[in-house]
Amino acid sequence: MPMNSHWDRFQQFLLRHAATGFSLDISRMRFGPEFLSSMEPAAQRAFSDMKALESGAVVNPDEKRMVGHYWLRSPQLAPTAQLRSEIEGTFADIVQFAAKVHSEGAFSDVLLIGIGGSALGPQFVSDALGTGADAMSLHFFDNTDPEGIDRVLDGLQDRLGRTLTVVISKSGGTKETRNGMLEAKARYEKLGLNFAQHAVAVTGPGSELDRYADSNGWLKRFPMWDWVGGRTSVMSAVGLVPLQLQGLDMKAFLEGAAAMDEWTRVEDTRSNPAMLLAMMWFFAGNGRGAKDMVVLPYKDRLVLFSKYLQQLVMESLGKELDLDGKTVNQGIAVYGNKGSTDQHAYVQQLRDGVANFFVTFIEVRKGRSQASMEVDPGVTTADYLQGFLRGTRTALFDGGRDSVTVSMPHVDARTVGSLIALYERAVGFYASLVNINAYHQPGVEAGKKAAGAVIDLLLKVRRELEQHREPADAGQIAARVQADPEAVYHVLTHMASNDPAVRVECAQSAAGDLFRLV
Amino acid sequence: MPMNSHWDRFQQFLLRHAATGFSLDISRMRFGPEFLSSMEPAAQRAFSDMKALESGAVVNPDEKRMVGHYWLRSPQLAPTAQLRSEIEGTFADIVQFAAKVHSEGAFSDVLLIGIGGSALGPQFVSDALGTGADAMSLHFFDNTDPEGIDRVLDGLQDRLGRTLTVVISKSGGTKETRNGMLEAKARYEKLGLNFAQHAVAVTGPGSELDRYADSNGWLKRFPMWDWVGGRTSVMSAVGLVPLQLQGLDMKAFLEGAAAMDEWTRVEDTRSNPAMLLAMMWFFAGNGRGAKDMVVLPYKDRLVLFSKYLQQLVMESLGKELDLDGKTVNQGIAVYGNKGSTDQHAYVQQLRDGVANFFVTFIEVRKGRSQASMEVDPGVTTADYLQGFLRGTRTALFDGGRDSVTVSMPHVDARTVGSLIALYERAVGFYASLVNINAYHQPGVEAGKKAAGAVIDLLLKVRRELEQHREPADAGQIAARVQADPEAVYHVLTHMASNDPAVRVECAQSAAGDLFRLV
Repeated sequence: MPMNSHWDRFQQFLLRHAATGFSLDISRMRFGPEFLSSMEPAAQRAFSDMKALESGAVVNPDEKRMVGHYWLRSPQLAPTAQLRSEIEGTFADIVQFAAKVHSEGAFSDVLLIGIGGSALGPQFVSDALGTGADAMSLHFFDNTDPEGIDRVLDGLQDRLGRTLTVVISKSGGTKETRNGMLEAKARYEKLGLNFAQHAVAVTGPGSELDRYADSNGWLKRFPMWDWVGGRTSVMSAVGLVPLQLQGLDMKAFLEGAAAMDEWTRVEDTRSNPAMLLAMMWFFAGNGRGAKDMVVLPYKDRLVLFSKYLQQLVMESLGKELDLDGKTVNQGIAVYGNKGSTDQHAYVQQLRDGVANFFVTFIEVRKGRSQASMEVDPGVTTADYLQGFLRGTRTALFDGGRDSVTVSMPHVDARTVGSLIALYERAVGFYASLVNINAYHQPGVEAGKKAAGAVIDLLLKVRRELEQHREPADAGQIAARVQADPEAVYHVLTHMASNDPAVRVECAQSAAGDLFRLV
Repeated sequence: MPMNSHWDRFQQFLLRHAATGFSLDISRMRFGPEFLSSMEPAAQRAFSDMKALESGAVVNPDEKRMVGHYWLRSPQLAPTAQLRSEIEGTFADIVQFAAKVHSEGAFSDVLLIGIGGSALGPQFVSDALGTGADAMSLHFFDNTDPEGIDRVLDGLQDRLGRTLTVVISKSGGTKETRNGMLEAKARYEKLGLNFAQHAVAVTGPGSELDRYADSNGWLKRFPMWDWVGGRTSVMSAVGLVPLQLQGLDMKAFLEGAAAMDEWTRVEDTRSNPAMLLAMMWFFAGNGRGAKDMVVLPYKDRLVLFSKYLQQLVMESLGKELDLDGKTVNQGIAVYGNKGSTDQHAYVQQLRDGVANFFVTFIEVRKGRSQASMEVDPGVTTADYLQGFLRGTRTALFDGGRDSVTVSMPHVDARTVGSLIALYERAVGFYASLVNINAYHQPGVEAGKKAAGAVIDLLLKVRRELEQHREPADAGQIAARVQADPEAVYHVLTHMASNDPAVRVECAQSAAGDLFRLV
């Protein structure tokens, strides 16, 4: 055996699981012999937090909510019979609704309108599992960019009459989603189509969207429960309605997650891949997010997993306060696209540059379901993909850069369910290790509030322009509406760029620009 | 004026440019009054390095190359008449070739096969500028994943006969690209089509690919020059061949870049947006990449710009050694997708979590070219998009997080050219500020070499399995082929997952797994 072999350490820190076909290799993280045992008391607390969560304790204290995404794939574990029957009833309803849509044949396409947790899961799953043989094609609005909306609607123009629109918003009040819905509705109506007869809502019962859909006679409404967070909602109606409409295998998806849950429920650090992942994140960043997590799935179908994980990890772990109210500014930055493609983009920096990261390789063992041609004698494209993964892992390690490797047998509904469940649990464990609430998002409010203030200012400035028609600069207008001149300047510049009636005469400096309404 | 107003600072640090319509706002970076003047000597060196580069000096010393991407949009600045005529000749050739393809009407689709610098630029430009009225539709292979290749080819199946394949590789020896080309060729031939009659090469004159294309009678070959790096090649044949085939405006694209070049060539720090950007990167990360660059374009069409920039910045700046041979491990990590979408993904962490980043907002002033509906009285979707951008900028700043804002008038060929040129120059300046070579990528070789070793080992292990048919474990086989047991184990596991003739009997631990060829 070569002197520099890591074979012993590899055997010691490779964890395999027959039921899911997954394995986790943490041997190329340079933690010392005492690390895992030193973390054991924290691990035990994390196991016990997780047990409380799974049995229905209120583990999201500021929102006073249970956290129940694990029940979605194992309804028998739900803390009450009523919750169990709500889950099972909703899923049966989804299956029945999709079957009806498919059998009636009135719809060929699905337009999903959502953002964040209400879009990323469906986008990832749809792209990972879709084929040319799908029952329906999915399209997405995931922003409030009017040109992005136009592009999707223009693409659907000829078959909007055959397009089912699914509007997803947990709170039912997300502005981007509401705006997208109104734009879509206007386009349907422009084509003489009745929007309600093409519309489905997935939202919290009783929400603004729920009431709107109800009173306008939409085709169908599915519930989103307050005990499922947006970023872990892909196995609720949020993810399952589009998945089932696309014709993917919902049962396998849920079973894959349940099988992973069983593995990650084991209260033994060395046998639990989610706890080991959380430990490695802690080790890499000293429990303070000191290193970024670079995610490299070596499979085109998993390219959106990095983006999905970016949300799951960063929105869950990026917190100012810990559970005791202490300022901690936690989090782990996540980025990545796919291998080997990213090797030609930024592995130069990973290998040689600033060492502020650790890598997660995601290996898919099966290269191709059918037979492959040889691109060199005895060598296939899949062999090259494997060569690049292993080669990069080695080159990075030799350069002092650590990595973990998650291996999965192939990409299908079952394994994608398992992969998501693995990371959901790892995020929950890590949150316990660093004593934070992984299930709220207080920081999102600040941006929303500030955005609302911009909209209010816009209306105020417009009224001011209507009242005083002579040219004025931002400082003058700000004084009249009693607002910050810079904020007023941005609003004026935005209006001048978008409203032909608002004119600007540019001066040397921003303060001198003169605005008026014609 | 409110006490907390930043209006004065905003006026002081807003830079505007009439010719491009761009502006840069660095007022929300918390640099002190002395910072820019303290950096002035370094800025002067950077200006002088850039002048040398533009006049044809060998500024990429280890590869002994000139760096000429600025000449592509201003051929009159090329250091020799021959270079100028090569550029102008090639561009005229591209225009003529695309016109011929369009007028003959034999092709409807383009399959572009490339990776890294030979794919990211074309992908970004095609997505940013494409419409339903494009002359041809673009599709991409950008990996050596066989299932990714199958998905693209299956989607093209019915019209492969009408698909032009453009193979792009500067060196002509990139394995991923070569593999994709061979897989595409096999599919054409399976359908009874002559690949050469559908194939175009963009590659270094005399390269392996160039000779192959020549001897096989491909439709056309375009040159890639050694003085254009892959990550700055979007304005060479690499980017212009697909752009022109798609029917986009090549002239405006180049003019937009040239106009930005003029602005960023000004040797005055306070008037030069690229130098100010480079200064801000330096300020944010202490000239050591201590903070990640989060890129948030508030426009769906610019979503790939973050990925494009990830390559441009990280591959250029992620370097082990500086120009004096000192170990510096430089670089800046770049990630991001688009706003406001990412606000629902990870702005929670940006606002509340680990403060290891600065943000670049990219604002597109024009929301929509045609008239917009109102989603609230007097408010459009574009107003909301602006509200989210400004609101997030404010909320982040109030939370102590810095940002720069780049504004552009709208998204078209001209402004996209300008945007790319702005960042090309900023990267060049930053490299001078920290004294590194931005134009080579020595770290990429280590991964390629290690990958080649894996392929060699695969063939060796396979021969060994053929010779000794009895079951053996990785340690035994490693001893026979004199290789590292862990590397052999990975190769064996890969073979057992992909070759039905290689069987594995799994034991409790990896070391006990028994492999054999049947």
